[in-house]
Amino acid sequence: MQYPKALEKIFSLLQKLPGVGRRTAQRYAFDMLLRWSDKNLEDLKAAIDEMKKLQLCQTCGCLADEADCLFCTSATRRQDQLCIVSSPKEIFTLENTREYMGLYHVLSGLLSPLDGRGEERLGLSKLLARLESGQFHEVILALDSSLEGDATCLFLKERLAHLPINVSRLAFGIPVGSALEFVDGGTLARALVARGSF
Amino acid sequence: MQYPKALEKIFSLLQKLPGVGRRTAQRYAFDMLLRWSDKNLEDLKAAIDEMKKLQLCQTCGCLADEADCLFCTSATRRQDQLCIVSSPKEIFTLENTREYMGLYHVLSGLLSPLDGRGEERLGLSKLLARLESGQFHEVILALDSSLEGDATCLFLKERLAHLPINVSRLAFGIPVGSALEFVDGGTLARALVARGSF
Repeated sequence: MQYPKALEKIFSLLQKLPGVGRRTAQRYAFDMLLRWSDKNLEDLKAAIDEMKKLQLCQTCGCLADEADCLFCTSATRRQDQLCIVSSPKEIFTLENTREYMGLYHVLSGLLSPLDGRGEERLGLSKLLARLESGQFHEVILALDSSLEGDATCLFLKERLAHLPINVSRLAFGIPVGSALEFVDGGTLARALVARGSF
Repeated sequence: MQYPKALEKIFSLLQKLPGVGRRTAQRYAFDMLLRWSDKNLEDLKAAIDEMKKLQLCQTCGCLADEADCLFCTSATRRQDQLCIVSSPKEIFTLENTREYMGLYHVLSGLLSPLDGRGEERLGLSKLLARLESGQFHEVILALDSSLEGDATCLFLKERLAHLPINVSRLAFGIPVGSALEFVDGGTLARALVARGSF
């Protein structure tokens, strides 16, 4: 039996969400159809419109509610530290740690040699222009610990080597609160090498 | 750091989807914001509108593309079998087995003594009106194997006992393709009791 066309359409759209396959998309669609109020559905459509109005800061690439970027225009942020992330989303995660008070820069993508994504994907010229202004003394690479993240960190380290800037990367180690038996060997090895007095 | 209001709004709406918590809602919203094309977002809003136009059949409660219900108006379906389900969604699952050629009836809910949902939630009068017409000789209960499903099956069995109708429920047993070591004891016990020659 065929699903009604209106449902097939919404299934295929919901499947575009990360980690959502056909079964989950069907579950979501039926939930919206059978359990959501009309008001909720209208609100969702309105929220999509509102969301689309959000802008990315021209300078750093973070999400800006209005034209001015919260970070680039702030008087209380350290102006000589730059934290490099791969998505505006990660800025919120970092901010919630309350450990960082510098500025941000969002790369437009990560290197992925396997997918043929080279340095043109990083938006490197924008980053270099910021760094070559001499404003920054420290760059912190806050990128995933993945093939792409590692490749991008190594690449950026080389490309920034000629600048008088201290380039560091987030530390590796065991996650806070973790039981050692569930920590993988690679992480444990890095944690051992980087062990410190406490 | 606060998320922009437009994002908070869409987070809270997406959290209404089944099994979606705050983290997943954030992941979905950022994916829509940063990776979806404007066209996809427009399509999603349009699909929500299209979906809302779908109607539930007045007689059986299944999803109807137009005014007429596919099942109630069909000349090729068996008119004396009625399969009772708890949601229009399950009709599609049952239809895909190609094992059932009768009619359907969708309950408006299941009994849940723990949540204080009594028989008024079943939409019982509509079901009884259909059954008392004398059209049906067999009722198949295709409800979840859960506290609610079990309670509803028992309740319906009693309430239909006075009618000259054969009431059955889906068989219990081990799922096709399953390894015995992963089958729970309760299921295995039911499968043993109901064993058959093959």
